[in-house]
Amino acid sequence: MRQALNLAKSVSGQTSPNPPVGAVVVKDGEILGFGAHLKAGEAHAEVHALQMAGDKARGATIYITLEPCSHHGKTPPCADLIIDKEISRVVIAVMDPNEKVAGRGIKKLQSAGVNVEWGVLQKEAAAVNQAFFHYTRTKTPYVTMKSAVSLDGKTATHMGDSKWITSEAARLDVHHYRHTHDAILLGVNTVVADNPSLTTRLPGGGENPLRIILDSDLRTPLDANVVNDQKADTWIFTGSAITAEQASPYERAGVSVIPFDFLDPTAILNYLGSQKVMSLFVEGGATVNGSFLESGKINQLVQYMAPKLIGGKNAPASIAGSGFMSMTETLAMEIKHVEMIGEDLKIMAEPRKDDADVYGNN
Amino acid sequence: MRQALNLAKSVSGQTSPNPPVGAVVVKDGEILGFGAHLKAGEAHAEVHALQMAGDKARGATIYITLEPCSHHGKTPPCADLIIDKEISRVVIAVMDPNEKVAGRGIKKLQSAGVNVEWGVLQKEAAAVNQAFFHYTRTKTPYVTMKSAVSLDGKTATHMGDSKWITSEAARLDVHHYRHTHDAILLGVNTVVADNPSLTTRLPGGGENPLRIILDSDLRTPLDANVVNDQKADTWIFTGSAITAEQASPYERAGVSVIPFDFLDPTAILNYLGSQKVMSLFVEGGATVNGSFLESGKINQLVQYMAPKLIGGKNAPASIAGSGFMSMTETLAMEIKHVEMIGEDLKIMAEPRKDDADVYGNN
Repeated sequence: MRQALNLAKSVSGQTSPNPPVGAVVVKDGEILGFGAHLKAGEAHAEVHALQMAGDKARGATIYITLEPCSHHGKTPPCADLIIDKEISRVVIAVMDPNEKVAGRGIKKLQSAGVNVEWGVLQKEAAAVNQAFFHYTRTKTPYVTMKSAVSLDGKTATHMGDSKWITSEAARLDVHHYRHTHDAILLGVNTVVADNPSLTTRLPGGGENPLRIILDSDLRTPLDANVVNDQKADTWIFTGSAITAEQASPYERAGVSVIPFDFLDPTAILNYLGSQKVMSLFVEGGATVNGSFLESGKINQLVQYMAPKLIGGKNAPASIAGSGFMSMTETLAMEIKHVEMIGEDLKIMAEPRKDDADVYGNN
Repeated sequence: MRQALNLAKSVSGQTSPNPPVGAVVVKDGEILGFGAHLKAGEAHAEVHALQMAGDKARGATIYITLEPCSHHGKTPPCADLIIDKEISRVVIAVMDPNEKVAGRGIKKLQSAGVNVEWGVLQKEAAAVNQAFFHYTRTKTPYVTMKSAVSLDGKTATHMGDSKWITSEAARLDVHHYRHTHDAILLGVNTVVADNPSLTTRLPGGGENPLRIILDSDLRTPLDANVVNDQKADTWIFTGSAITAEQASPYERAGVSVIPFDFLDPTAILNYLGSQKVMSLFVEGGATVNGSFLESGKINQLVQYMAPKLIGGKNAPASIAGSGFMSMTETLAMEIKHVEMIGEDLKIMAEPRKDDADVYGNN
């Protein structure tokens, strides 16, 4: 199952809107086949693993990180294939919360006389699928907020110098999140200040996320990389006062300009959910981070801290906006992971969910 | 030697202005005596360890965390005692940088035919003695700055609510530093806002540090705990305009009011050095922290981060002042230690000293 989870993790970021799934076929202590779901619309993990195993699959055990599907989607149901191949035992990490599956895959297998176990490494498998589970439950994207700060919590000096807070190693680590998220979101001020391309630049390439710019007044420069480089889709979310005439030069460059009555995180996430965007990586700036914090829409924080002290009453912090008024209102987090990335510290934290199940339900 | 270092660490905070030292006497694989220097003016570590060993010390090895003294101070020289007791081998972690010792202890032992080794666990021993080494080198106190912030680097909400950022476990950990530092320093604004007692409240007690309040205009309330509770000495550092008449009610309460021409970290540390204050714990607020950062006088940062997000453009950070202007001017630190204290993260960092020796000399 660990191997199946490793396979699932390795394809995280390339399967959306499907979850990353891994599968391993084993008989008499020998591995007969591996598989992972590589891309939405293509073969599921079980199909690859059973194909590799071939006729030897008869009587074998298959380890799968997520309950196999029982319905006809873009591909035939995997439960049927497992039964056809005369697999004798199926070990599942976590049940699929998708209402089309939700226990039906397991029932179908059991009805056919297959021995089924589930809940093996369930928490680990849920962690791999957290964006998928969140999206399935809420119909809105899973939100990861990134910040890069000095030890004293600043993102720049009081004069605005911010290049660079963190080391190259930490900045490279960020690209892993661009790869694993469907979309990346930035405020227009950061686009104006830094002209970022927002693409994934891992040593081996990577999936570029959909680029979303929050820009009420449509101030994104027409010569910005996100408008011109054609490296990924770009959507500019504006206020409702923007006219078709204002939008047209952007549209001609292939950028979608989408007006919102209220350009707030709730509306944004509902819209993105409707567009099957399962995960969103929020890269700031501080005002955008503040609005996501205040609306309670953060699912994960990834924070890089550089071993520097900047100081300054007027040096900016990572989260602005008005903020919470009292300590009891602040967002209670749980630190999930801490590691050194080169000389920088990386902290991963999630809002505390004391009573939630592995799918995030309370 | 590890045991000797543990003994030295255990008395850290109670030996000032002497360094914490541990010693262990061993013969034929058996421990014959332990010792540590408990208090300035009292017996050194070697004396205790050799006394415990008694006559069996003849022909034994003594492990000492710091080079034994060779001069007559408040106690006779330990090197002479080691020779008298006919110890055959002395293993020393680190040489004493104090010019009255500095290799002379070792020479004296060698001249008497004792086999001497040094440099065993030298870095660890230097870490235990870092305040003493810094003070010996600079004649000014070793400065530890403490901060307690949320994950987004805030010390309070924009409304000023700060109770509490960190958990009880982290706040208790702070008292360990009050115990191990000779003095604690705070700005008057924090005294006015919180009326702290600044004493050491560890489960087993602890040494109270000398309390220093930076208060240019002598605004410390006469009914403040630091003025009235008689639990530790308090010195108020003021500007030069303060009159004897203004100072007298404080002096009557047993508090020293000390005027400075320029109340800046350099002047403060020079004065404290002249008063044999070997280590200083700076507990803020943000303006005081800013002045210590800008004057380059921080030797160590101890930062507690609570798993909370506060947000707010106007929520205060741990270090204010004007701060550095460009990224190249910022203080480059090195993260030395990271641990969870309950649900909080504790980060210890020091200014980077790429070429310094174990004594801090470049």
